[in-house]
Amino acid sequence: MPSHDTETFYEFLRTQRAVRKLRPDPIPDEALARILDATRHAPSGGNRQGWRMVMVTDPAKKARLGELYAPIWEAYCSKYASTEGMTPEAAAGMIRTLDSGSYMAAHMHEYPLIAIVCFNPEHLAVTDIEQDRVSVVGGGSIYPAVQNFMLACRVEGLGCVLTTLLCQHELEVKSLLSIPEDWYTAAAIPVGYPVGKGYGPVRRLPVEALFFQDTWGESV
Amino acid sequence: MPSHDTETFYEFLRTQRAVRKLRPDPIPDEALARILDATRHAPSGGNRQGWRMVMVTDPAKKARLGELYAPIWEAYCSKYASTEGMTPEAAAGMIRTLDSGSYMAAHMHEYPLIAIVCFNPEHLAVTDIEQDRVSVVGGGSIYPAVQNFMLACRVEGLGCVLTTLLCQHELEVKSLLSIPEDWYTAAAIPVGYPVGKGYGPVRRLPVEALFFQDTWGESV
Repeated sequence: MPSHDTETFYEFLRTQRAVRKLRPDPIPDEALARILDATRHAPSGGNRQGWRMVMVTDPAKKARLGELYAPIWEAYCSKYASTEGMTPEAAAGMIRTLDSGSYMAAHMHEYPLIAIVCFNPEHLAVTDIEQDRVSVVGGGSIYPAVQNFMLACRVEGLGCVLTTLLCQHELEVKSLLSIPEDWYTAAAIPVGYPVGKGYGPVRRLPVEALFFQDTWGESV
Repeated sequence: MPSHDTETFYEFLRTQRAVRKLRPDPIPDEALARILDATRHAPSGGNRQGWRMVMVTDPAKKARLGELYAPIWEAYCSKYASTEGMTPEAAAGMIRTLDSGSYMAAHMHEYPLIAIVCFNPEHLAVTDIEQDRVSVVGGGSIYPAVQNFMLACRVEGLGCVLTTLLCQHELEVKSLLSIPEDWYTAAAIPVGYPVGKGYGPVRRLPVEALFFQDTWGESV
């Protein structure tokens, strides 16, 4: 049987969800210090830690990030916003997500923090670079730290969401934050206290759909 | 001040480290069920959950994975095993890592579980695909689940380590586990109870080296 401590741990993981509507209230220094410490302990290939984060709180820089984000978000919505063929429940969920995403695009400059996640390919062992499909393994040394960051936000009651649309404006973001030539961007994570309830239950596939035993398609 | 619950949570994250020397003892069903449930709750782009895991416990299949792994591990070692220019402490750490890696390569078939992480590129929003550098963003929908999996292993006292060398034998691994043509491999995670102490302190860069304030190079 799990102890109280482990049960609490699992409860944190089960209730981590994307929180897009955030208040402008500042993040306490002590909470942020705990989040950064949890993040820096994440594993990475060969312990190379080829990731960095730029914590953007400067109003002018946040405003510029918001300006870059809004049109990509709008384009994303017009491409994916169809609820055709969905169940009423799924359609309602999608509309809620799009609404809160549009709120975020309009208010990003007021959010207390936007964390820009950077990486240097020379510090990653990209073992799938020769495969004839999109490479993902570099992310194995970046997104464990990102997940630690987001889990720690959840533990502190701070909402956040992993966004990657700004990668399409990588040059502008690098220039804005003086990111060196050999470092690139992997994500932008807006952080702040939730407008609404924030964390809670999430909709996910059941274990049987995600895990197989020894052979693809065989139940665990 | 953090409560006891959050302090325990952070302690789990701080003491997660690669554990490569594992015992053959089986993993209790209840522990595994908690790990899979924690994993399935991880976030992914658009909640598409474009990842799956094949839990390999079949002795013949584990043996084959070990056969595929050992020569790539040896090649990796001969390429990276130089301790030239390292401090004595760093060199000793590297030799310990290589020793335990070689133990793993020789004993992988005896480990109770090897989890093979799969993904389908069609279920990922790879927003950095047009950038003139290696793509990593697909990993943003895979490795948060991997990190949940490994953190849950740590909470259960089970050792594990994220390995990606087997991606170099992706076709053989796909064939062995009947992975469909449009799904690929992102990692292999051997799991079992530690031979030694298992979890504990890790060596990581300090916060000042990893996080910047508003501008690259500026202290947080």
